[in-house]
Amino acid sequence: MSTLTIEATRSGLVESFHTVSVAVVDTEGTLVAQAGDPHRVTYWRSAAKPFQTMPMVRDGAAEHYGFGARELALACGSHSSEPMHRALAASMLRACGCEEHQLACGPHPPLSQAVADEAMRAGVILTPRWSNCSGKHAGLLALARHHGWDTQGYERAGHPVQERVLDEVMRWTGQSRDALKLGVDGCRAVCFGLSLRAMATAYARLGVSPEPAARQLREAMVTHPELVAGTGRPCTDLMAAARGAVVAKVGAEGVYCAAIPEVGLGLALKVEDGDGRCSPPALLAVLRQVGEQRGLSLPVAELRQHAEPVLRTTRGEPIGELRATGALRFH
Amino acid sequence: MSTLTIEATRSGLVESFHTVSVAVVDTEGTLVAQAGDPHRVTYWRSAAKPFQTMPMVRDGAAEHYGFGARELALACGSHSSEPMHRALAASMLRACGCEEHQLACGPHPPLSQAVADEAMRAGVILTPRWSNCSGKHAGLLALARHHGWDTQGYERAGHPVQERVLDEVMRWTGQSRDALKLGVDGCRAVCFGLSLRAMATAYARLGVSPEPAARQLREAMVTHPELVAGTGRPCTDLMAAARGAVVAKVGAEGVYCAAIPEVGLGLALKVEDGDGRCSPPALLAVLRQVGEQRGLSLPVAELRQHAEPVLRTTRGEPIGELRATGALRFH
Repeated sequence: MSTLTIEATRSGLVESFHTVSVAVVDTEGTLVAQAGDPHRVTYWRSAAKPFQTMPMVRDGAAEHYGFGARELALACGSHSSEPMHRALAASMLRACGCEEHQLACGPHPPLSQAVADEAMRAGVILTPRWSNCSGKHAGLLALARHHGWDTQGYERAGHPVQERVLDEVMRWTGQSRDALKLGVDGCRAVCFGLSLRAMATAYARLGVSPEPAARQLREAMVTHPELVAGTGRPCTDLMAAARGAVVAKVGAEGVYCAAIPEVGLGLALKVEDGDGRCSPPALLAVLRQVGEQRGLSLPVAELRQHAEPVLRTTRGEPIGELRATGALRFH
Repeated sequence: MSTLTIEATRSGLVESFHTVSVAVVDTEGTLVAQAGDPHRVTYWRSAAKPFQTMPMVRDGAAEHYGFGARELALACGSHSSEPMHRALAASMLRACGCEEHQLACGPHPPLSQAVADEAMRAGVILTPRWSNCSGKHAGLLALARHHGWDTQGYERAGHPVQERVLDEVMRWTGQSRDALKLGVDGCRAVCFGLSLRAMATAYARLGVSPEPAARQLREAMVTHPELVAGTGRPCTDLMAAARGAVVAKVGAEGVYCAAIPEVGLGLALKVEDGDGRCSPPALLAVLRQVGEQRGLSLPVAELRQHAEPVLRTTRGEPIGELRATGALRFH
């Protein structure tokens, strides 16, 4: 079996290691490359956001409320709670006649340490729009409003919003309703348990689909990568450097998904232990190997801070790194 | 091969999993039970603190500076930066005529989230005595002072303080100098790379050794568990509940070590990916299995919050748990 591992080194010794499973597929879902168990079932978490946002675009809610590329990027994103992110989430809520207390997501320390430190120092009470998922949730509320559905309980399985999202997830992943395991995400919305291969299939399709909604969403993400994550974060830096060659979205617990539209491929990976430090190095290792195999020029070398993050002592001296070892098996 | 795994569940599905290696040995270092690779080499990190503190006791520095059980417990501990911890570290420094700026350890966000939040809200500038390792470092400075060694560079390999610590680590682990890999810890002191079996051997010996210094240190740890970690932390709660039946110390990157003096056993485990959330459930699973096999009454059932920590949404609803599966192989 082919393996991909992220090693954490300290003073030249491998102190810890992380096993990664990977599926790289074409738009038919045929495995093109793999590592570990490409059929591994886990939750898609935030890497599902483009597909959770798709109904809002396809059903006309985005157009109705005047949401452009910036709003779509935020809805597909896991933002860092920077002022621009919070302001945009608030304006999406206003546009569809909702208020912050209607967001079902709970607050959490901002994903950006700098933003988190600043908020704590300023004594800010974190509210739901600070959630990294507030763009997605604002989009789901807009969908409910546009259809005239009750906004109450929009995050829960069985609500028309979630039924509509579920249909879309089935359509892009090619999975039946029975094959999808429904769970509850950290932000309390429904999350979807499915195989890496199925996640990758959805991304392969997202990358090349001629459907207007798919085109709008992927263009929003690559045009406004700063709204999909935030300053210095891997999704943002990768999509900014790739200039449309990669559409990428991280998920919680070590999941990362991406599309490479030029070759019609999609990929999904899972750091088996869920370590979010390790999914960016894993993604960049996969992109490097696929790029080499297909003769693509993907921006991996210039993203060294994400491909091989430096580990430091409490005084900031470099002491080791995270680094990928192992090779995908290409079919 | 026998395996021990910590599973992270969400809505009834295993979302992530963590592989654990374990060595359980007697005082001769003979394997009594194992899981994964008991010969796995990794860094001992903070689980080495009792042995890093041993020279201070054996060489008379502790007695000279009036350090009793409380100071010894703090020196063996990775404290939560609670006021009692910071005050005691400061008083140890004063006793040996040192000042805070001489501590080589850098500050870091307190291990207790409550203490970290409070410090951030209060706008506190974190200084070295806030480091979870400040007790150990104060002890190393006391050792240098007592011997009349230069305190400058006490944390680095080759300094007489670290040579003395290295001798002690060799003595308790039974490892030659060549077999020990020296690295730099997060707190900048020397850390030691060695096998889980060797770490476990040192703990088995610490638990039953008739040497006065070993007895003083283990009694300090079990008498003042609140100084070895802090409010609500696993080392503290376990040793408080075990009433001397277990001497336990966590290390960074998923290491946990313990002694069970009643049966002369020591154990060391490593969550292979280094996840510190998972080492307490792993330790309690190992203690439960060893306890059952040896007919011991160890306090595992009453520590459910550490044995099976609940995972929650951002609004605090329970959504899953960490739980151990798999069995040790007993010889």
